[in-house]
Amino acid sequence: MIRMPTRFHHAAIVGKYQAQGIRPLLEDIAQFLVKLGLEVSFESATAQNTGVADYESLTLAQMGEHCDLAVVVGGDGTMLGIGRELARLNLPLVGINQGRLGFITDVPVDRYREVLEPMVAGDYEEEHRTMVEGGIWRDGEKIFDGLSMNEVVVSRGATASMVELRIDIGGEFVANLRADGLIVASPTGSTAYALSAGGPIMHPGISGLLLVPIASHTLSNRPIVLPDQGEIRIEVVAGRDASANFDMQSLASLLHGDQVRVRRSAHKVRFLHPRGWSYYATLRRKLRWHEGVV
Amino acid sequence: MIRMPTRFHHAAIVGKYQAQGIRPLLEDIAQFLVKLGLEVSFESATAQNTGVADYESLTLAQMGEHCDLAVVVGGDGTMLGIGRELARLNLPLVGINQGRLGFITDVPVDRYREVLEPMVAGDYEEEHRTMVEGGIWRDGEKIFDGLSMNEVVVSRGATASMVELRIDIGGEFVANLRADGLIVASPTGSTAYALSAGGPIMHPGISGLLLVPIASHTLSNRPIVLPDQGEIRIEVVAGRDASANFDMQSLASLLHGDQVRVRRSAHKVRFLHPRGWSYYATLRRKLRWHEGVV
Amino acid sequence: MIRMPTRFHHAAIVGKYQAQGIRPLLEDIAQFLVKLGLEVSFESATAQNTGVADYESLTLAQMGEHCDLAVVVGGDGTMLGIGRELARLNLPLVGINQGRLGFITDVPVDRYREVLEPMVAGDYEEEHRTMVEGGIWRDGEKIFDGLSMNEVVVSRGATASMVELRIDIGGEFVANLRADGLIVASPTGSTAYALSAGGPIMHPGISGLLLVPIASHTLSNRPIVLPDQGEIRIEVVAGRDASANFDMQSLASLLHGDQVRVRRSAHKVRFLHPRGWSYYATLRRKLRWHEGVV
Amino acid sequence: MIRMPTRFHHAAIVGKYQAQGIRPLLEDIAQFLVKLGLEVSFESATAQNTGVADYESLTLAQMGEHCDLAVVVGGDGTMLGIGRELARLNLPLVGINQGRLGFITDVPVDRYREVLEPMVAGDYEEEHRTMVEGGIWRDGEKIFDGLSMNEVVVSRGATASMVELRIDIGGEFVANLRADGLIVASPTGSTAYALSAGGPIMHPGISGLLLVPIASHTLSNRPIVLPDQGEIRIEVVAGRDASANFDMQSLASLLHGDQVRVRRSAHKVRFLHPRGWSYYATLRRKLRWHEGVV
Repeated sequence: MIRMPTRFHHAAIVGKYQAQGIRPLLEDIAQFLVKLGLEVSFESATAQNTGVADYESLTLAQMGEHCDLAVVVGGDGTMLGIGRELARLNLPLVGINQGRLGFITDVPVDRYREVLEPMVAGDYEEEHRTMVEGGIWRDGEKIFDGLSMNEVVVSRGATASMVELRIDIGGEFVANLRADGLIVASPTGSTAYALSAGGPIMHPGISGLLLVPIASHTLSNRPIVLPDQGEIRIEVVAGRDASANFDMQSLASLLHGDQVRVRRSAHKVRFLHPRGWSYYATLRRKLRWHEGVV
Repeated sequence: MIRMPTRFHHAAIVGKYQAQGIRPLLEDIAQFLVKLGLEVSFESATAQNTGVADYESLTLAQMGEHCDLAVVVGGDGTMLGIGRELARLNLPLVGINQGRLGFITDVPVDRYREVLEPMVAGDYEEEHRTMVEGGIWRDGEKIFDGLSMNEVVVSRGATASMVELRIDIGGEFVANLRADGLIVASPTGSTAYALSAGGPIMHPGISGLLLVPIASHTLSNRPIVLPDQGEIRIEVVAGRDASANFDMQSLASLLHGDQVRVRRSAHKVRFLHPRGWSYYATLRRKLRWHEGVV
Repeated sequence: MIRMPTRFHHAAIVGKYQAQGIRPLLEDIAQFLVKLGLEVSFESATAQNTGVADYESLTLAQMGEHCDLAVVVGGDGTMLGIGRELARLNLPLVGINQGRLGFITDVPVDRYREVLEPMVAGDYEEEHRTMVEGGIWRDGEKIFDGLSMNEVVVSRGATASMVELRIDIGGEFVANLRADGLIVASPTGSTAYALSAGGPIMHPGISGLLLVPIASHTLSNRPIVLPDQGEIRIEVVAGRDASANFDMQSLASLLHGDQVRVRRSAHKVRFLHPRGWSYYATLRRKLRWHEGVV
Repeated sequence: MIRMPTRFHHAAIVGKYQAQGIRPLLEDIAQFLVKLGLEVSFESATAQNTGVADYESLTLAQMGEHCDLAVVVGGDGTMLGIGRELARLNLPLVGINQGRLGFITDVPVDRYREVLEPMVAGDYEEEHRTMVEGGIWRDGEKIFDGLSMNEVVVSRGATASMVELRIDIGGEFVANLRADGLIVASPTGSTAYALSAGGPIMHPGISGLLLVPIASHTLSNRPIVLPDQGEIRIEVVAGRDASANFDMQSLASLLHGDQVRVRRSAHKVRFLHPRGWSYYATLRRKLRWHEGVV
């Protein structure tokens, strides 16, 4: 957790894709930020989808050049898509959530005024989240490039009974895995797909990556927490129609011998939280620990 | 466990598909059974694949009419394929295994003489295994028919992040499941894919089916053991390119609204075991309980 | 599920132990049942604890003789304690819950009038739940006798690192287990402690028992669903201060060689549910499937 | 992994406690080390238990002063006991195993000559393992002090149904846990008890601790990987006779309000491995990944 008492000057507003109905909300937020003294622009796709024309429209690259804050309106899925891009631009973001609060969206829509005001004035907590990046290699050439906030998944084809994967880490052989697939997750991704597949929760402060087999044939192939130095290589050894997924980007029809290579990215997502934000409180809320399910 | 002191008269030999190299072994077994006084035929595909021509070749239907025993040479996969067919013919089978013994192949190849001799004379134990059958329905019409010894699986497309399934049992709504997929397993299937996905072991004597979600989003969607009366209906509610698998037979590209319906089959696989066979001993051996993994 | 269109004539009221504050509620329920034409008595401990003196007070044995219905006010814990006793008397029970509804208490306190009225008139569903019973044997003698609605647990002493247990089922050796302990659960118990230890949910209609190792050293010692014929013998082989628990009754300081023997009880708990009650609806509510935890 | 090309000069030999039969082996190893030019002493308890009198006998404190290497003969349990002590003395150790190789004993007894020779000459790999230390606090006073290589466990009394624990990390509230107990494990401990309780494997290179609930009532209370800064406080809120275990040292009969406080220790265990040692190879061997259990 890094605290930086910076006042912001130029915010970009980013909205949920395919959500035309949020135009009034985005305009309210924009006006509110203008009133607080900020220059306000709209991310160009958001402007186009919603028809907002009263504000300057900026491409992502332009946002990286001119803005010092991104205000993202949507759920965890929206944050996942845009966070990856903003990380490349080193632009911090704060998430306003219209529905049920997510793991990485902190501000409920009905309280955004009271929460954002101190934040844009510099009273916030900043947290950096590790990302994973990598590529797919075939016959010595890279055929796909990916960057993920949550995870990279290699999985079996839909009608195949399994995929066999050879795993090497930092040049060292680890295991041959026969399973539905394998997840390489960042700490942020540990509460997403990896959790469903039986992985542990990883505090974002851990310098590590998480390897979670999906329905492994060998029962002792348990999730492994790895240091985040060194490259993880996953080679498709057997199984029809395996595919690789980097968050939402996919490459299907992997061939035997194809290698998915994953490592910690140099880019980090910069989340801004309201002062007093707590990772553990987020876990309690999302996992309903307080309600005692069963 | 049902004991029936029946002497056998006409055995059919079934070999591992695609295994030309087993011809000498199949001929040895055939000669041995002839010496014991049995009439011996070859399943026609086995005869064709191996080139064995000295014995009568029978189709499966003919085997059902003329034979009272099938001797299957191969592993659990071979048994899975042929067992399903033999169940329809009500023909009992005994499995001879060339490699590591499986869950459902009892006789190691180097001991088949001493093990088979008392068995063909009527000294054996017979066990009946429940199967599941079902179909896929689209717009009120059945578009696929399947029979499984192990399981029926409905799972997400390779590049989809999940499939949403609505589950009804015996006409009663159970749950909407968002997951990688859902397994409906027989007791025999409980030690196959269902075990990898986190399910329990089910003794074959249980009159029940097993529902195991694969990587469910909701952590409390645990495996459920169900009575084997009543039909299980699984409707694809959301998710691209879901597929259904009945053991090894697959149908891909399911549409939203498609229903996979599964119920206990009226057919049972009739396994013959050497006297003294023990289900628990098989578990110990296959799961290496005695060695204390970790 | 068995439907029996019987009108009830004599109800016994049983209250949560140690809950003096529930006297007004119990009296309201009693008056309501009297108005519906039933004779009403109070279980003697309930009468004593609450000071209710206007109704006949009956021992459990007398309840078995004179009553045809028990109305139990409390939570799952109260039901667990009294259900075991009522099963011996073959007396059906309906549970009224003051707090959050449980797995086996169906009637919320604020709706008891509308729910009970048709039930006492014979419009209800009756469900029978399997119980487990057993004893602890030392040097050939039984030193403890127990009956459980949920489970029998054999577990390590508090400062021991593990207990080693030898498991035999129906006279057949199953495994030596090194673990924190072993749970033998009824279907009803499958959603209690056994679920926390990694077991599956077992529909109450399954004729089976559930064996769930607690933190087993051997990772492949998975939960097993067993037919409910045959006795399960659990012998303490190693480990200091092991103990056995039958629901809430415990025997500590087991010695090496002590045997815990468990089998399905001949007694069944007879639950009465409002017409339209659904086991799956109870699972959805208790496990919050509809809310999608995570 | 740190490589230090140091030649050793004075080895202390430490043997499995209670293992009188190993005297000849210990003497063989001692003679072999003398031949290699090392001064050799015996840890005093080892000397006493085995009756070895030809070598200087040193207390642990004296070993810390005079020796630069400890050669430990035994299994993982022996290493666990002595490693903790040697860590305080900053003395590196190498483990010779008589039985099946463990997670932290590298040298099989029948190959110790060829393996030790290059190691004592300085050709080895050194690895540092994190330990956890802590204490138990009652009414503001520390009543117990502990140091663990594997884990600290707080668990329920033998006849209690559960313990309720309040968890705070670095002064921040995390959760109230109702469970059989809670494990705080080091990376080394992740393949011990924590693995049995459902935790992930943690590479020793991870700067983190592992929190694993044992049979938690709330299904979403999953294992958590935590940064190893900050103190973990575990307060007993409810439950009879809870106990705390630091590796093999125990304190029973904890009272409500007692606090178990755990943090990373400043001491590290210094393991010496033969050149080419691989953590992943150890996992493969111990977890039998290569054999494909099931």
